[in-house]
Amino acid sequence: MNEYAIIVAGGSGSRMQTETPKQFLELQGKPVLMHTLEVFMSYASHLKLVLVLPEASIPVWQDLCKMHSFHHPIHVVSGGKSRYQSVKNGLMQLPQEDSLVAIHDGVRPLVTRGIIAESFATAKAYGSAIAATPLKESIVEVAGDSARSIDRTRFRSIQTPQTFKTLLIREAYEQIDERHALTDDASVAEKFGLTIRLIAGSYENIKITTPEDLLLAESIMGTKKIRRS
Amino acid sequence: MNEYAIIVAGGSGSRMQTETPKQFLELQGKPVLMHTLEVFMSYASHLKLVLVLPEASIPVWQDLCKMHSFHHPIHVVSGGKSRYQSVKNGLMQLPQEDSLVAIHDGVRPLVTRGIIAESFATAKAYGSAIAATPLKESIVEVAGDSARSIDRTRFRSIQTPQTFKTLLIREAYEQIDERHALTDDASVAEKFGLTIRLIAGSYENIKITTPEDLLLAESIMGTKKIRRS
Repeated sequence: MNEYAIIVAGGSGSRMQTETPKQFLELQGKPVLMHTLEVFMSYASHLKLVLVLPEASIPVWQDLCKMHSFHHPIHVVSGGKSRYQSVKNGLMQLPQEDSLVAIHDGVRPLVTRGIIAESFATAKAYGSAIAATPLKESIVEVAGDSARSIDRTRFRSIQTPQTFKTLLIREAYEQIDERHALTDDASVAEKFGLTIRLIAGSYENIKITTPEDLLLAESIMGTKKIRRS
Repeated sequence: MNEYAIIVAGGSGSRMQTETPKQFLELQGKPVLMHTLEVFMSYASHLKLVLVLPEASIPVWQDLCKMHSFHHPIHVVSGGKSRYQSVKNGLMQLPQEDSLVAIHDGVRPLVTRGIIAESFATAKAYGSAIAATPLKESIVEVAGDSARSIDRTRFRSIQTPQTFKTLLIREAYEQIDERHALTDDASVAEKFGLTIRLIAGSYENIKITTPEDLLLAESIMGTKKIRRS
């Protein structure tokens, strides 16, 4: 069964208080997005990669690839106005065949090969596999001016990869309107009637959306190098 | 109206894979707990501080105070077997008077004077004030082997300080059994019938429970110093 990964890198950089979109910010001397792609490439040589970028960022990305001698057969697709549209554009590039597709945020470079492998294996068996972690902090549900305590053990914080049988998630994106999607692919799949299956993500698999996240990623990567040597 | 703060530092250090309890780990050359206490002391000189420590940690703390020339009028109380018991021990030290008390985790050194001030002001007006932030990640609710998407905008992740009118929270802790408490003071207050009022916490107000958290705190503090200069 063919395996694909759609890496979604649609950020404009506004939350980072910087001109550079966050997927292009440097992490240990290399754009965040290159780290992310490299983890997927290291998972399996047969994996086919689709990278979704905002139209305006494509030339910037091409320059960065030259600068960093990053030459890999990655299919680049231009994104839409929202994450939903960008993922949909990516999905429409895939052949209509019985395959698997992992959808992953370009700004999560600390995903591991282990998580990716588990994700494909679970999606193959059950149709979907969503990386998730227990909640670290207590949560409350807001009700007007006050709030109500909630047992956090009932909930999971969800990450990417979110992996599916390609034909199912393609059809879900064709049939489920953007207005019915929450923030991620799991909600589109669920609205379409698919069962959402969770796998263990990792607290280190952070999404880089603030300057502090970038510092944390640097720290985690530093720690990892020390551990490996 | 008198203002108190109970700083709860009950950790044994097991999650940090280290012998040193996490509240004593060094952050920029000083134990995490000292940073936390200093933010509260900088908020107002009239604030009265109660520090709850595990019995076995009290001599260690006294040595650290000597080593770092940290001499402040802080009332040290020995903790209980759980966070619930430790907070209760702290509350029982406070006089039976119409005052306010902020309960705060010893391992959240990045709280700000602004959050503390807002917390006391809101608790004075409404009886309670719980620092909270919007959820950064999507969440799902677990149901057996599968999961259900949830609209995360309905929820908040909660932090400390959790500030209350002293007489109310004391009575809540006297009447509400530990088995009915979830993980924090807000849940005890709520079970007792108090209305939970939220204030804006901060994503930087992290709880230091893993080695990565300590690195992140170092990074945030480094960034702050640069910003200030």
